[in-house]
Amino acid sequence: MLQKDDSGYIFYPGLTAFPATLGHEVARVVVDAGKAAINKGSGKQFQVGDAVCAEEMIWCSTCKPCADGYPNHCERLEELGFSTDGAYGKYVKVDARYLWNIDHLETLYGKEKMFELGSLVEPTSVAYNAVIERGGGIRPGENVVILGGGPIGAAACAILKRQGAASVILSEPSASRREMALEMGATHAINPMEINAAEAVLDITNGVGAGIILEATGLPGIVWPDVEKIIWEGKALNTTVVVVARADDRIPLNGEVLQVRRASVVGSQGHSGHGTFPNVINCMATGMDVSPMITKRIKLDDVYDNLVTLQTDRNEVKITINDFE
Amino acid sequence: MLQKDDSGYIFYPGLTAFPATLGHEVARVVVDAGKAAINKGSGKQFQVGDAVCAEEMIWCSTCKPCADGYPNHCERLEELGFSTDGAYGKYVKVDARYLWNIDHLETLYGKEKMFELGSLVEPTSVAYNAVIERGGGIRPGENVVILGGGPIGAAACAILKRQGAASVILSEPSASRREMALEMGATHAINPMEINAAEAVLDITNGVGAGIILEATGLPGIVWPDVEKIIWEGKALNTTVVVVARADDRIPLNGEVLQVRRASVVGSQGHSGHGTFPNVINCMATGMDVSPMITKRIKLDDVYDNLVTLQTDRNEVKITINDFE
Amino acid sequence: MLQKDDSGYIFYPGLTAFPATLGHEVARVVVDAGKAAINKGSGKQFQVGDAVCAEEMIWCSTCKPCADGYPNHCERLEELGFSTDGAYGKYVKVDARYLWNIDHLETLYGKEKMFELGSLVEPTSVAYNAVIERGGGIRPGENVVILGGGPIGAAACAILKRQGAASVILSEPSASRREMALEMGATHAINPMEINAAEAVLDITNGVGAGIILEATGLPGIVWPDVEKIIWEGKALNTTVVVVARADDRIPLNGEVLQVRRASVVGSQGHSGHGTFPNVINCMATGMDVSPMITKRIKLDDVYDNLVTLQTDRNEVKITINDFE
Amino acid sequence: MLQKDDSGYIFYPGLTAFPATLGHEVARVVVDAGKAAINKGSGKQFQVGDAVCAEEMIWCSTCKPCADGYPNHCERLEELGFSTDGAYGKYVKVDARYLWNIDHLETLYGKEKMFELGSLVEPTSVAYNAVIERGGGIRPGENVVILGGGPIGAAACAILKRQGAASVILSEPSASRREMALEMGATHAINPMEINAAEAVLDITNGVGAGIILEATGLPGIVWPDVEKIIWEGKALNTTVVVVARADDRIPLNGEVLQVRRASVVGSQGHSGHGTFPNVINCMATGMDVSPMITKRIKLDDVYDNLVTLQTDRNEVKITINDFE
Repeated sequence: MLQKDDSGYIFYPGLTAFPATLGHEVARVVVDAGKAAINKGSGKQFQVGDAVCAEEMIWCSTCKPCADGYPNHCERLEELGFSTDGAYGKYVKVDARYLWNIDHLETLYGKEKMFELGSLVEPTSVAYNAVIERGGGIRPGENVVILGGGPIGAAACAILKRQGAASVILSEPSASRREMALEMGATHAINPMEINAAEAVLDITNGVGAGIILEATGLPGIVWPDVEKIIWEGKALNTTVVVVARADDRIPLNGEVLQVRRASVVGSQGHSGHGTFPNVINCMATGMDVSPMITKRIKLDDVYDNLVTLQTDRNEVKITINDFE
Repeated sequence: MLQKDDSGYIFYPGLTAFPATLGHEVARVVVDAGKAAINKGSGKQFQVGDAVCAEEMIWCSTCKPCADGYPNHCERLEELGFSTDGAYGKYVKVDARYLWNIDHLETLYGKEKMFELGSLVEPTSVAYNAVIERGGGIRPGENVVILGGGPIGAAACAILKRQGAASVILSEPSASRREMALEMGATHAINPMEINAAEAVLDITNGVGAGIILEATGLPGIVWPDVEKIIWEGKALNTTVVVVARADDRIPLNGEVLQVRRASVVGSQGHSGHGTFPNVINCMATGMDVSPMITKRIKLDDVYDNLVTLQTDRNEVKITINDFE
Repeated sequence: MLQKDDSGYIFYPGLTAFPATLGHEVARVVVDAGKAAINKGSGKQFQVGDAVCAEEMIWCSTCKPCADGYPNHCERLEELGFSTDGAYGKYVKVDARYLWNIDHLETLYGKEKMFELGSLVEPTSVAYNAVIERGGGIRPGENVVILGGGPIGAAACAILKRQGAASVILSEPSASRREMALEMGATHAINPMEINAAEAVLDITNGVGAGIILEATGLPGIVWPDVEKIIWEGKALNTTVVVVARADDRIPLNGEVLQVRRASVVGSQGHSGHGTFPNVINCMATGMDVSPMITKRIKLDDVYDNLVTLQTDRNEVKITINDFE
Repeated sequence: MLQKDDSGYIFYPGLTAFPATLGHEVARVVVDAGKAAINKGSGKQFQVGDAVCAEEMIWCSTCKPCADGYPNHCERLEELGFSTDGAYGKYVKVDARYLWNIDHLETLYGKEKMFELGSLVEPTSVAYNAVIERGGGIRPGENVVILGGGPIGAAACAILKRQGAASVILSEPSASRREMALEMGATHAINPMEINAAEAVLDITNGVGAGIILEATGLPGIVWPDVEKIIWEGKALNTTVVVVARADDRIPLNGEVLQVRRASVVGSQGHSGHGTFPNVINCMATGMDVSPMITKRIKLDDVYDNLVTLQTDRNEVKITINDFE
């Protein structure tokens, strides 16, 4: 948001409708709930004191994509913290339909960490939507490759490990991010600046390759030769490449690779619908701990300074505000 | 609705909230549309004069099933003509989200038949939801079996013929209904009172059997031996039995048949969601004419008398009111 | 096969093991069958006099892809007429497992046309594998776009019309091929040299777009802007692009189109497995007549001359040898 | 095999062709391999000394089900240890196509346990085929219910835990089997003789119910009321009931439960194909230890005595012969 383009204007290319309070990854306590504020998970009214997290996509529920069950492609989308007031404030008002209860995270993690994990449900759901809903998931015992160890790539490591992958191989230049991904579920983390990623994958998997390859670098032009080498030389048929990172550059796709190896490429966006939020929360409640993604904890007053820092500091992943009572 | 149970009370077992005007299969002209009355199909506002048909299921759009794309299983369902005022009146008020444009039916059928077909979109969509959405459809060249030639069974014949079935075999005791189904797409119509349905199917299909078997009789206990014989003796694996008719009696399921023949049984209810309404309308617009289902045309004033008649007369299928301008 | 590359060597890039008699699209009569020559379709022994057609892919049945049901990706593939002796001779020897009975085509078409259609089962199955098995097919009422009106593209028109598409839109520069596709099932055939294909598709479909787009031109770099415009501007989500034509040039894929429109790209090769051959034959037996694809009928002795002609004549599609008794 | 029916004849109802050496769950060392003995996993020839396990189903590879990728439904099936000589001998001869390498189990488990686990790949694959291939698996965070804690039920607990289930709930009367399942992956194990299984499931899952319910008791008539109560009262739509245990009694299926809750019933048989064996072995190699299933280790000479014991002793699960060098 602070980043500027060449003409000095806001660089962020997504949907915005300012002025709006920022903040879109949030877990908080319900302080007021109307009679119609039904908790979708239980079918009952939300109660004051319920711990909840929020979807960021404010889908309309009645356009054709929403009515057909594809809220991530809502034709009248609003976005919490971008086009409506978000979570960087004492209170935030969200329609009940975008809220999910997280109270059952407390048993395993305690109250404070419950809210931290709650704030990570949104980015984790972006990864879940990518590999499970769009990528179709894997069968236990298959291998996966994650290209890029940012929040989405790291969360994908946790999710696919949870889904039973034999090898979860991350390719990521940053040592600290590789470290983090290994903590979160990656079984192997390689540095593509030092070794060839495709050869490493073929070596680790005994020449099998991968069921899913997640493009989460935003540099598809750079990683694509590796993607195709894994598919072409691996024995596995039916590899699905999921493109989740946004990118301007074109992918130099070789159709023959898809033909000969029975492979496919799909795009993924969003985190809503398909039961994703409750599934992610249930995974967390039963042991999937993605908190290594949080590299720093700050107070609400420190947000601006940290946004400034984040523009240049590639070592921080998630900076979490935790001074709410 | 007129039928009474043993205690003299209304027999109809479904959802009702009377007093409510009846009438739930309807195509009419828009006479007034608010600014928020968006046509999901086009993304634009409905206009006075648009020809439309309506879903009967008034799904809430925000409960978990609705939000996940399963409006047929809405937790707060209302039903047009059962719990809200329906179409047996000069005007009927329906939220735009349940309406679909049918103007493109005029080219092929003319104005009057356009509305008749429009009123059949709802029951045809029940059949479409059963065989396409729940049954998973077939591949062109496979065979299907439809048990029961009422409106849903007959519409299923039209839909599966349209989807490219090699043989569409209807089993139905009534000669007039067999006749109707043959007009609508069935390639074979057999009388199960005269010949064994399973043997007929195996004979017609050269021993292959069927990809989909639709139970639309409401008498599963009676037809199930035929269902299992087709699956057990047919060479086809992976048969899906779709149970669409409601019934009180239990199905005496032989698990071994499902095991040895890799078969499955699914239930189907409703007609909303999954792009079903627009797909059905597009099929009609390009030649799928289900109007043989209409066996009688009446005026609005004659509704009561005809409802009385329908209780005993099994020859009528759809009686359509067509005196609206 | 006659075409030469720059060094004067055979141009054909696929698998060959010469010397081998050519001829790989074939329907003939069984003149001898061993005891183990079981007809997969019936489970019984082939009989002298049976009319049959043959798969071209000689899959091994026991490598991992074959054992997992993907014979089109057999690791020890032989090809009839390329690496083993094919059909340009008085007799051709084929293992029973690659043969399918076509006798039931006689009822509708008579004996001579039965064999002509039988010889077209192979290329039609390539199209069927592309749009039905790999593309996942469509639901009745959806639209499809076929880019390229050669044998595969034309057969795809017939198959998708058969599967119930509302609009089957072909884009093809050759007038005679457009003509042929319209005969075979296309509902619209446009000349991309005269009008913009994407705009035509959006116009014909009222802005909806397509469920499947088949790339059958071999010039993906040229058609891709149209492919992406149809997806990007069409209201339909979940479009699947099937790349069936082989091509050397890279596809300039825009990942964002796949992301925002929930689309995917798959590759397709081959025609074996998945029940494709019998499904295609059953479609033919019940009305799907792809014989307009045959533009010339010759004698076996005229094969060489016609192969010479075919190198330059783009008007012929299939030239069929029909002098076998 | 030792069990007799009323007429004193062999009770076992499956395929047999005696005389044949018994023994169908086996892992051994290759002592001789022909040139054509290709390891499907690597594409290379098997070597003397390779550690391997064997499928039990001797599928023909060329009948229609085999050719379509459904070897579990082979029309010319033989069975190792039932219709061909099995593993209760010093050597056993198996075609390479049924063998899978297990050497990579050694790293985690050592040599002796490698073979024990290898002998469990077959029953574990039966469970994997049931819940993953036929049941379609679950998404991480969903719940599952396993009815019956024999080898298949217990292996299913391990597999679905591995696939990321939030709650894996076993219902089984035997305390020792409940114990074993908890070791193998069940998160909850209930005694249906003491508490109502359906109520327990609804309680544990906060009223959600299950994505998959596995019927592995062989007493479907007894457990079905619980199955339907879980589906009917649980909030989860789309529950798949997988019937894997063979049973003579009919299932009293209520179609309305499938309709209202969008549920389905599928049958499952076998363990071959679909990549199941290598996936199971890879799961084992990366931590899925199903060895608690082995309750006793014996010598080859003790087989007969133990078969006698097994007829009455319900506490033993798998008795493993481990005196091979």
